[in-house]
Amino acid sequence: MGLTMTEKIIQNHLVVGEMKKGSEIGIKIDHTLTQDSTGTMAYLQFEALGIDKVKTKRSVAYIDHNILQTGPENADDHLYIQTVAKKHGIYFSKPGNGICHQVNLERFDVPGETLIGSDSHTPTAGGMGMLAIGAGGLDVAVAMGGGEYYIIMPQVVKVNLLGKLKPMVSAKDIILKVLSMLTVKGGVGKVFEYVGDGVKSLSVPERATICNMGAELGATTSIFPSDEKTLDFLKAQGRESDFKVINPDEDAVYDETITIDLNELEPLVACPHSPDKVKKVSEIKNLKVNQIAIGSCTNSSLFDLMKVAEILKGKTIAENVSLVIAPGSKQVLTMLAENGVLAQLVASGARILECACGPCIGMGQSPCTDGVSLRTFNRNFEGRSGTVSAQVYLLSPETAAVSALTGYLTDPTTFDGKVDVELPKEFMVNDNLIVPPAEDGEEVEIVRGPNIKPFPKAKPIAAKLEGIALTKVGDNITTDHIMPSNAKLLPFRSNIPHLADYCLTPCDPDFPKKAKENGGGFIIGGSNYGQGSSREHAALAPLYLGIKAVLAKSFARIHKANLINNGIVPIVFKNSEDYDKIEKNDKIVIDNVVNQINEGIVTVHNETKNEDYEMVLDIPERQKDMLICGGKLNQIKKQNA
Amino acid sequence: MGLTMTEKIIQNHLVVGEMKKGSEIGIKIDHTLTQDSTGTMAYLQFEALGIDKVKTKRSVAYIDHNILQTGPENADDHLYIQTVAKKHGIYFSKPGNGICHQVNLERFDVPGETLIGSDSHTPTAGGMGMLAIGAGGLDVAVAMGGGEYYIIMPQVVKVNLLGKLKPMVSAKDIILKVLSMLTVKGGVGKVFEYVGDGVKSLSVPERATICNMGAELGATTSIFPSDEKTLDFLKAQGRESDFKVINPDEDAVYDETITIDLNELEPLVACPHSPDKVKKVSEIKNLKVNQIAIGSCTNSSLFDLMKVAEILKGKTIAENVSLVIAPGSKQVLTMLAENGVLAQLVASGARILECACGPCIGMGQSPCTDGVSLRTFNRNFEGRSGTVSAQVYLLSPETAAVSALTGYLTDPTTFDGKVDVELPKEFMVNDNLIVPPAEDGEEVEIVRGPNIKPFPKAKPIAAKLEGIALTKVGDNITTDHIMPSNAKLLPFRSNIPHLADYCLTPCDPDFPKKAKENGGGFIIGGSNYGQGSSREHAALAPLYLGIKAVLAKSFARIHKANLINNGIVPIVFKNSEDYDKIEKNDKIVIDNVVNQINEGIVTVHNETKNEDYEMVLDIPERQKDMLICGGKLNQIKKQNA
Repeated sequence: MGLTMTEKIIQNHLVVGEMKKGSEIGIKIDHTLTQDSTGTMAYLQFEALGIDKVKTKRSVAYIDHNILQTGPENADDHLYIQTVAKKHGIYFSKPGNGICHQVNLERFDVPGETLIGSDSHTPTAGGMGMLAIGAGGLDVAVAMGGGEYYIIMPQVVKVNLLGKLKPMVSAKDIILKVLSMLTVKGGVGKVFEYVGDGVKSLSVPERATICNMGAELGATTSIFPSDEKTLDFLKAQGRESDFKVINPDEDAVYDETITIDLNELEPLVACPHSPDKVKKVSEIKNLKVNQIAIGSCTNSSLFDLMKVAEILKGKTIAENVSLVIAPGSKQVLTMLAENGVLAQLVASGARILECACGPCIGMGQSPCTDGVSLRTFNRNFEGRSGTVSAQVYLLSPETAAVSALTGYLTDPTTFDGKVDVELPKEFMVNDNLIVPPAEDGEEVEIVRGPNIKPFPKAKPIAAKLEGIALTKVGDNITTDHIMPSNAKLLPFRSNIPHLADYCLTPCDPDFPKKAKENGGGFIIGGSNYGQGSSREHAALAPLYLGIKAVLAKSFARIHKANLINNGIVPIVFKNSEDYDKIEKNDKIVIDNVVNQINEGIVTVHNETKNEDYEMVLDIPERQKDMLICGGKLNQIKKQNA
Repeated sequence: MGLTMTEKIIQNHLVVGEMKKGSEIGIKIDHTLTQDSTGTMAYLQFEALGIDKVKTKRSVAYIDHNILQTGPENADDHLYIQTVAKKHGIYFSKPGNGICHQVNLERFDVPGETLIGSDSHTPTAGGMGMLAIGAGGLDVAVAMGGGEYYIIMPQVVKVNLLGKLKPMVSAKDIILKVLSMLTVKGGVGKVFEYVGDGVKSLSVPERATICNMGAELGATTSIFPSDEKTLDFLKAQGRESDFKVINPDEDAVYDETITIDLNELEPLVACPHSPDKVKKVSEIKNLKVNQIAIGSCTNSSLFDLMKVAEILKGKTIAENVSLVIAPGSKQVLTMLAENGVLAQLVASGARILECACGPCIGMGQSPCTDGVSLRTFNRNFEGRSGTVSAQVYLLSPETAAVSALTGYLTDPTTFDGKVDVELPKEFMVNDNLIVPPAEDGEEVEIVRGPNIKPFPKAKPIAAKLEGIALTKVGDNITTDHIMPSNAKLLPFRSNIPHLADYCLTPCDPDFPKKAKENGGGFIIGGSNYGQGSSREHAALAPLYLGIKAVLAKSFARIHKANLINNGIVPIVFKNSEDYDKIEKNDKIVIDNVVNQINEGIVTVHNETKNEDYEMVLDIPERQKDMLICGGKLNQIKKQNA
């Protein structure tokens, strides 16, 4: 029986377990990446492991989130990461060098190898034929130390692309189409393999766009074959030697198949406030726009921005529009500056932001109150832009650029002009903002500014968990809800005591206060609890607040792992109607905890209602032991002892 | 008897009073400018005047301060300013178009005409031979309405420049030299006229640098002749028709003369925390640097950045340095992108920020804790960078660029290379981010987001002022101390109730609370109280807190006018030793207020110490009446009634 690409790569990296769907496996990690908003914590955790030098093929620490620097906190974090990286064998990508996924694609991603990153959009590297997975900071720290990374052996979905995109229809529209078909919960436990004739016409940056936003499906990851297009890209980056063919066997067996005819695709848009609320652009009439933002790890490649420039060239943006463009990397920016394209963008009225995540993570460019913002980004969760009342739409660079000219959301196929852009035969390579690690780490002194605070540590599980249901939330709660990420809070990602005061406040403003007053307690969640960003802070802040368990209809993958890594029990209602029975403030008791964890069936007693609910803890032995030990660090300590 | 340039321009614009040194005159204002951090308030005040259309030759509203947009407040303000401008005959420079002073120099400044701006660096236009003065927002509003602007007929200082600058010595070093000679108090009540042979070798952007930072002398303004260099610049901007020769008569009489031999000048640096703490760069050894920032209204011209690029070309910045560059305008950025210079800057490792004030006003790029930051800016007040412990040095673009390569503060004359830059014969002109006002303002609807709050209004003066000395501060207190300007507060410039809670807190954290508890009171200041930025908020916040009078050794010009405009009495100790006698919390009484204001001698009774202090209110009748009316708006209403 033939293998999928996923199976081939896993087979080559399998350390623990068997390739049996649904069972846990441990794989060897070749590469890691961190960004600064999760990285400070990941490196604090790496330090706690007491390992001198990373054991991966390559680990890179990026600075791309917190670069506004509206106080000393960001620069303090940068300096900590720069010095800790230098000491421990990690490459450091300085602020200004670009967005982690874009730079990693250009300079470091290798077909057929494995990558985990403390950022949920790490699957971007799937565009290079890499098995690339978003993970919590602690998992990344452990992988840097040479430990395997655990996942559930995923189901593999074949996405069969037929034909070719019409002009002005874009890779972004492909992934929006998939999101419209499967929703933000549709990818849980799955890897999406893009195959078929349609793949051949897509360049590596286009493939990366699709894999990037596959994260919004809740997928484990997405992957494209490594083929001639991959070779072209690697050659143009001076990295031909990294090339290797990756493709599924002819007789590979998939768990599901989806077919998309690219010829029939039209420009799409995800409407507020979810990436799966997809409509045809042509369906939405008379939507006047305040802001258009182009960039983010989804659509900030040279290819994307050259298309935008072709559309804007010689024209002026509409009076009512503020257009901001953030190139994805120093390479992109240098090349745009070199080939005159940047001059065209600026001349049209575009504001050029730094090569970084920027507005996608609410770091600047918040729209006006009730403002309509069209963005080439990957997430449009309510409030993520920094403006709670803003209406954020996700769309392709083509749609964004054409709309910038008209001032209204506009179907780009109505554009009166041709956009014909090719990738260069040779990229300008200059890695001078990537600082290599020290030969001898011992002489490097780590600088810890006052913003670097110790992180909370879990304790071995108690015999009995009791407390009140501190809050009850609905479906699809994101990690942006659990641990809001905005310009005011992001600078404190290495300061959990400060962050904890904002935990879950978008859903329940009194939650942190109540948790503190009650010495902790329980969270009641709906389905797909913890979707979105990989931030471990969505587990660390609840840990700090004394949360003992989260009771939900279902969990998103990375967040569930982060909860377990930090000793918080994530249990699922066996009968989802039981969710309706628990109310906020109900007194909850879980007895005989260790046994129940080991059994994987947990009886939750609602003392207020005098009811029992049967709940499921469907996790492998390794994670059960981890919960009992009180999280991953304690487990590792126990193993080392 | 011949006339100075100052006298000539004033003579042509004199509406009220006589050109007698020390007496008040009212002059007609041809041009106004506002920026967004003072502009929202200025336009609210303009609206309060009830005038349909501005009566100036040209008024321009810029957006250059609050462009990080870390919440909806900034974009709300932008939209308010954009719509209020369109309605009332004001040109609107969209965010991204650049820093007000740089853009005004390029596109609007006219030799021999008058300009006031609600920004203390408005004198930049003196580089174009314009009489350009920083003013409070209300003064700008009144000038837009056709009202005259009042100043004390200034003393005129001749700054005689001899010879020519040596290579790698810069216009910035000239003004740093003047600051070292005269200090931040040395320019009060004076206009500085730069004349002599040395002037001929300085281009308009270099002259603008000098006039810009003349603001740090406390000067009314600075001015250069309008000559062939001016004509060259205007021609290159396609504005030849704006040219007019402006120079002093041969037999002009000056109040003072300073002579600077440019040949003898060396690279200089202003050390923390004042622009007048000037040393030679060569004197400071082994100063390792964390950050270098190039830009601001002082040094962000094409000329400046091309020099920087010549130095950085083909090289890489030091590992320990974060180099940020903010071009001054869209014109500068477009030209740098067009001529390949931007690509050189980026390739060297520079981070390119938006065309705006940025880090100069603490909007981003705050250094790390205790960080050393070298900046081509104009102010290095403690904490202004957003990092209280940062050590900020002010210096030339040449010194900044060379230091970026070495990682240490470095004398640029040691640079092993030639820097030879000429201004272009033709600038790229594209004003498509400047929105002209509506033909018919009536149909324009002004958009007022929730961040636009009503401003506090003064009341007619009470018969008796009494209260406690709420705080006592030292010399050279800046408006940055009185009303801090940082990334957290700047978004609230149209929200005085919010800002008031931070008033004077860098000097006295309890001040706002104490003021509120006591229903207002008095502030005791040292000399040069209120130096620095023109922000009217340094008067509006105290007004909101019930401050009745400020007792100081002396006042900075713009702040004094702002206090009076808002009905707060600024009085000066006749015997400066009396300053030492008043203590915080002393009960103060001023009786018979109207009479005492009219007499200009005010007896202040210290009830706690049972002492009387004689104080001086040395202001013209117009301002005395204004105080009695309760500020400028009330005075205008009375006049109109």
